[in-house]
Amino acid sequence: MLLLIPGPVTTRPDVRQALCRDFAPWDNDFRHFFVRLRSRILRLAGGAEADHACLPLQGCGHFITEAAIRTFLPSGGRILIPATGSYADRMIRLAAEAGRVPVPLAMGPADPTDPQAVARALQADPSITHVGMVHSETGSGVIHDVQAVGAVVRNAGRRMIIDAVSAFGALPLDLSIQPEVDAAVFTTNKCLEALPGVAFAVARVDRLLACAGNAGSWSFDLSNVYTHALRAGWGSFRFTPPAQLLAALDVALDHHDREGQPARLARYTANMHTLYKGVSDLGLSPYLPLARQGPVIVNVHAPADPAWDLQAFVDALKARDVLISNFDSTPVPTFRVGCIGAITPDDMAGAVRAMHAALLDIGVTRREAA
Amino acid sequence: MLLLIPGPVTTRPDVRQALCRDFAPWDNDFRHFFVRLRSRILRLAGGAEADHACLPLQGCGHFITEAAIRTFLPSGGRILIPATGSYADRMIRLAAEAGRVPVPLAMGPADPTDPQAVARALQADPSITHVGMVHSETGSGVIHDVQAVGAVVRNAGRRMIIDAVSAFGALPLDLSIQPEVDAAVFTTNKCLEALPGVAFAVARVDRLLACAGNAGSWSFDLSNVYTHALRAGWGSFRFTPPAQLLAALDVALDHHDREGQPARLARYTANMHTLYKGVSDLGLSPYLPLARQGPVIVNVHAPADPAWDLQAFVDALKARDVLISNFDSTPVPTFRVGCIGAITPDDMAGAVRAMHAALLDIGVTRREAA
Repeated sequence: MLLLIPGPVTTRPDVRQALCRDFAPWDNDFRHFFVRLRSRILRLAGGAEADHACLPLQGCGHFITEAAIRTFLPSGGRILIPATGSYADRMIRLAAEAGRVPVPLAMGPADPTDPQAVARALQADPSITHVGMVHSETGSGVIHDVQAVGAVVRNAGRRMIIDAVSAFGALPLDLSIQPEVDAAVFTTNKCLEALPGVAFAVARVDRLLACAGNAGSWSFDLSNVYTHALRAGWGSFRFTPPAQLLAALDVALDHHDREGQPARLARYTANMHTLYKGVSDLGLSPYLPLARQGPVIVNVHAPADPAWDLQAFVDALKARDVLISNFDSTPVPTFRVGCIGAITPDDMAGAVRAMHAALLDIGVTRREAA
Repeated sequence: MLLLIPGPVTTRPDVRQALCRDFAPWDNDFRHFFVRLRSRILRLAGGAEADHACLPLQGCGHFITEAAIRTFLPSGGRILIPATGSYADRMIRLAAEAGRVPVPLAMGPADPTDPQAVARALQADPSITHVGMVHSETGSGVIHDVQAVGAVVRNAGRRMIIDAVSAFGALPLDLSIQPEVDAAVFTTNKCLEALPGVAFAVARVDRLLACAGNAGSWSFDLSNVYTHALRAGWGSFRFTPPAQLLAALDVALDHHDREGQPARLARYTANMHTLYKGVSDLGLSPYLPLARQGPVIVNVHAPADPAWDLQAFVDALKARDVLISNFDSTPVPTFRVGCIGAITPDDMAGAVRAMHAALLDIGVTRREAA
């Protein structure tokens, strides 16, 4: 079964097999393992041990995003969020419900974030301290240029939080050259090709220390995660961690080391091209022009054929061992297909053949956009 | 290896083996699975489908405890918390950092909660709306009587939140006869004998609806978890769940069904008696008199011998395939030994023999309390 939902992703059998042990998460052996794991992830983010900390949090991407917003902005703090799509909308909601003030930056639903628009918005409102930005926007498929936007944030003397949930491990990230970034946050079940249930922030140590007391939540206080992780030099979790998932992550990172980030990005990009050309050849219309299409997810317009039914299509695909989401996350009806996980262009070519058959199964002959 | 830390616990191999598949958590098959899983847990809590909802949350026990406090108390709301030990202290800290006002009820560190003291405290302070209570206090080993305390809470017209993290699945809980309980919260990696990384609340539907808007956190808003779970009748998660852990939980619940809660409690109680008598026979002093000793965890006083060193003892035990915590959670030095998990009195007798050998290894001859 190919999971193209696009996350949790298809994982390798040895990654899943690493789940099958009991662990004592405060045992000394596990603590050493965990210190090493944090260090591996820090390196992937371009973090330097002196400047950055890799901080784990139980849960999902929304949790680590809320934790970063709470930790680095005080209650009432203002954060500019380019409205890149449905995941930016989620960051806006997380900030608002946490008592921070999100300031959405309007933009077209398929546009890349314009650094100059960010610069103008920051100049116009000096009370904005932060920019919150989605690196890979699932709600469109666009990759947003965190370095270009980061440069204007840096020039404006503001701070930045990057939602790298569906980017980290595939898209390059180098926090050593982005000192304006308070934290990049992500989970392990996307481009790291591990399992869902644990999230990480790579954050600046100086800012973690300066921002102690902001969070208004013990659970989501990354400053407290940091001070606890340092306690006695151990790097342990504060509360019971999903130890099995961390063991699997370690095996997934071995695969990542062997492949390397550039090759992983190239593989996902090849998956995307196979998919993009494949669905186009079937007469379907991708949501984005190829020039804007990122390597993580391809959203495809729902066909105009009255026989189209997303759930029926999903079911017909599933009967052919391909799983996609039975909902969309774009402003217009689409279906979403992930390009990430332990899959190859050959797998994707098979998925396209399955889509062809599934369309025939449900009687869709008119394939242009609805 | 026996995990007596006391949680995460020793699990059965088939529970762990259920982790080893990829899952698509919004797939229709998984949704049906998840609806059934929630219903199974609801029944274990004595919840009625018409009155209660079983609500999942990614993460750990601290997260679901904070979520319940945020959901059922508004900002500034006051919650009486019997100071039963280190886990009550954690509930106090979670409430305070979330902007609620915890009112600790002082008591002796080894005392059971006195319902009449709770009644007096509620009568003395009409602004207290809630009582937060730890069912099984790891920081002592005492089981607190949630029904007796619940009765005085009910009579006083107040509400109750039960931290049942290390009790649920072993100690009886029947929410059908405790309408004063807004929520009982717990994780799956203790007496349910599954893996860590997911938590649950069983909560009253009327209160979830009445308390919408309290949480001040989208991530921790159980009212929102509830409305989302009902959406289209599906019972899905809002954000990516740890699907593998839920699959393992389902297998663990099969074991729980076969054993039954009374037999599980009896097994843990037998484990406790084997341990309690065993360490006493070794000349060690349990923290609690037997009459107050619960079946979940036995804290044992550190011996007075100058050769005593907790980490050395833990290491010597580990060399004999028994893992206990290398920290304590009592006001005086102790070591903590769990009685829960997929273990039997025979396993515990083996653990006691390992303790005997480990004490000899590290040269402890004086065994009375320090």
